Amino acid sequence: MTPTTADRFLTDFHEVAQIGKTDRGGVERQAATDADRQTRDWFVAFARERGWAVEVDRIGNVFARVVLADRGGASGDAADASDASDGEPGSAILSGSHLDSQPRGGRFDGAYGVIASLHAAAEVERRVRAGELDAIHDLVVVDWFNEEGSRFAPSIMGSSVYTGLMDCEEILGVRDLAGTSVREALDGIGYRSESSGPGGIAGYAEVHIEQGRILEREGIELGAVDSSWYTQKLDIEVFGEQSHTGATAMADRRDALVGAAQIIMLVRDICREFPDETLVSSVGQMTVEPNSPIVVNSHVHLVADLRANDPAIVQRARDLLVERFQRVAEDELLEIRATDFDVRPNRYYPEAGVALQERVAADLGLGIRRMQTMAGHDSVAMNTVAPSVMMFVPSVDGVSHCEREFTRDEDLVNGLRALTGVLAEMVGGALDGVSFPGSAPHGDAAAADADRGDR
Amino acid sequence: MTPTTADRFLTDFHEVAQIGKTDRGGVERQAATDADRQTRDWFVAFARERGWAVEVDRIGNVFARVVLADRGGASGDAADASDASDGEPGSAILSGSHLDSQPRGGRFDGAYGVIASLHAAAEVERRVRAGELDAIHDLVVVDWFNEEGSRFAPSIMGSSVYTGLMDCEEILGVRDLAGTSVREALDGIGYRSESSGPGGIAGYAEVHIEQGRILEREGIELGAVDSSWYTQKLDIEVFGEQSHTGATAMADRRDALVGAAQIIMLVRDICREFPDETLVSSVGQMTVEPNSPIVVNSHVHLVADLRANDPAIVQRARDLLVERFQRVAEDELLEIRATDFDVRPNRYYPEAGVALQERVAADLGLGIRRMQTMAGHDSVAMNTVAPSVMMFVPSVDGVSHCEREFTRDEDLVNGLRALTGVLAEMVGGALDGVSFPGSAPHGDAAAADADRGDR
Repeated sequence: MTPTTADRFLTDFHEVAQIGKTDRGGVERQAATDADRQTRDWFVAFARERGWAVEVDRIGNVFARVVLADRGGASGDAADASDASDGEPGSAILSGSHLDSQPRGGRFDGAYGVIASLHAAAEVERRVRAGELDAIHDLVVVDWFNEEGSRFAPSIMGSSVYTGLMDCEEILGVRDLAGTSVREALDGIGYRSESSGPGGIAGYAEVHIEQGRILEREGIELGAVDSSWYTQKLDIEVFGEQSHTGATAMADRRDALVGAAQIIMLVRDICREFPDETLVSSVGQMTVEPNSPIVVNSHVHLVADLRANDPAIVQRARDLLVERFQRVAEDELLEIRATDFDVRPNRYYPEAGVALQERVAADLGLGIRRMQTMAGHDSVAMNTVAPSVMMFVPSVDGVSHCEREFTRDEDLVNGLRALTGVLAEMVGGALDGVSFPGSAPHGDAAAADADRGDR
Repeated sequence: MTPTTADRFLTDFHEVAQIGKTDRGGVERQAATDADRQTRDWFVAFARERGWAVEVDRIGNVFARVVLADRGGASGDAADASDASDGEPGSAILSGSHLDSQPRGGRFDGAYGVIASLHAAAEVERRVRAGELDAIHDLVVVDWFNEEGSRFAPSIMGSSVYTGLMDCEEILGVRDLAGTSVREALDGIGYRSESSGPGGIAGYAEVHIEQGRILEREGIELGAVDSSWYTQKLDIEVFGEQSHTGATAMADRRDALVGAAQIIMLVRDICREFPDETLVSSVGQMTVEPNSPIVVNSHVHLVADLRANDPAIVQRARDLLVERFQRVAEDELLEIRATDFDVRPNRYYPEAGVALQERVAADLGLGIRRMQTMAGHDSVAMNTVAPSVMMFVPSVDGVSHCEREFTRDEDLVNGLRALTGVLAEMVGGALDGVSFPGSAPHGDAAAADADRGDR
């Protein structure tokens, strides 16, 4: 990769960070808002300038196809290929991430992976056109819809619908707090079709910031993700009785907010009963009713998030919490209900993909280590239908989902170079036919086949 | 009072409870909503049927004048009096409360006092017309705007503007959570003028449910309120740092919601350090940002409410809380700011008014006791400009600001009879010239004069 390629990538990266930028260095580009539309328009313009065909699917994912493989009849000329009219599209390697952000989120999370994929694809295309590289698959760059899940829950929405893990009609009916549905929001920004997106996917690659401090602490340039943590959420409802703060004796109150406060502390403190950093847990979302200054609240709704590598730890923590919630209910004369939802098992990335990243890093002279991800990613969904590769670059201080999120230009460029190397191998068939074990750590071909479905 | 009068009152009371009624026996009629407009329309129709002149003032209070006093030239005929064209209106006794409610509030709080005042006024008018009673003041029934303060803060808004305790222009600019101003909301329901309301007020009377369980526990029909508690609010802001719940180590989090949870518990538990029921305190309102399921929250805003009869107790509790908030801030690496607001000193009702209620109760054969109010009322504001009387009837279980709020018909009728007796005395001049001590327990004429202003 030439210095010019790296410069162009950085210029584009910092240009996109201007869209929806906040006063403290972050971005606010929640899914299917106008700021999200602007980044999509930028993505489409980038693809069209290069003659890459653009496709939007039924859940608002955006795909740009770089035709690389010679399928006979096709001239191999970019201008011809772009109209995608010369027969059925062939197999492809997907690469991407998401351009949406959390409210007042960082400018790296997601956007980095999409923009790096666009530039890596341009470089791979250049090498194929120059005869430096043979490709048997096309390359399709993707911007997944609503990975963040802040405006519309759950998260990882676009890739989950694409891979069949979530039902499209059900998800299109999900509404935000203002009552707007996913369908209405996507139609509003002009990014929805009836298409189910490209088929024949032979593999997937994604680069992302680490969102932790392991790489930074160890001074290593790259992380090859080999598995994801077990996660689940708890939906918690607290019911008390509404009364007047200025006229109800303390002994007569049944204050749902007092119960909720104890739940927030129990969820945070449960981590201390397990070895350091083996469990993370918190309450992120809560709504309070009637939420008036001089009224004792009657109803609080909370969402707690529990994550560990070991599912038994999450299960144990969850059981202890539910038991303790009942003690709070008894002490405070409240009713408390807790329901499990959004349970996501450990997922394992194919060993061949991890080994491929290690070979590419060695060729580039970059340090790499294997690691896990606590956070969910689109690659976790994609890994259920195709062999997937997930790569991390360092995050300063490990912070993310906030305006202070930061990764140095040098680390961004290292990730771009490694992704380019990985994609160059994958379009040549490097991961073809490898098992992608999904929920089993050492490969369960039957389960993987069952997961794979039609694609 | 005849059984027919009591029946007519109860019929009207239960009819008004249908406006904005909830599925669990309460009402939802927040200030200047359409349901509030419907109760106002009902009030106006009641007055016009009897030929009483209706006036709306600049802050949306509604007044209905029953002309009783013979001022020469006036015929004393109700039809003539209603057009209010025969010269300047004379002095008047005001009586009323408020028709607005809390969100999912009870049907008694406020509405009882307004409807009882209308029927008491009709009975007093009948007695004057029948020559059974001499009146030197007119009687004006009032529905005060936004006593509850849930949609637009602060509470006790209409009577505070009327008495000059709050600035009208400032209050008209207050906005609800949807961004609608008081001015826009009042114009929207057609209840705002440029008038400052009736002058020449010689006294005020209000009947209200107790919102506590003292009368019920002691089996006494009436409470004569002699003073109000000292109250204040604390506006509390907690600042942490937004980060990803699924990727941020527990040790690296600065979770504003965890700080807020501790504040809620500190505010509740501080009461236990003082003798039973001498202090009540709670957090009623809170907003959480960004409030997304998988984000550690960066900002929480809370409103705490502290009340005691003894101002020193509130001050001590407030100081302890602010000191403890700082310990939470240090432990959790947060920033916490607390600001005092809405401080309301003890207010004392005139002794002559309390004694008048006791005489009237004795004449009716009803039990009565002196008591304090923890809650604020419109009468607290009115007592700064005219000698005011505040009377309570029992509340079942002492609950209020909720759908389960309940007072028996028999108790409602007892309150109506007592209010009628008190108003019959007041229009005859029973409280004329008495000092209304306001902030001093045993009469501070200078302070009262200073409070009185122009009216």
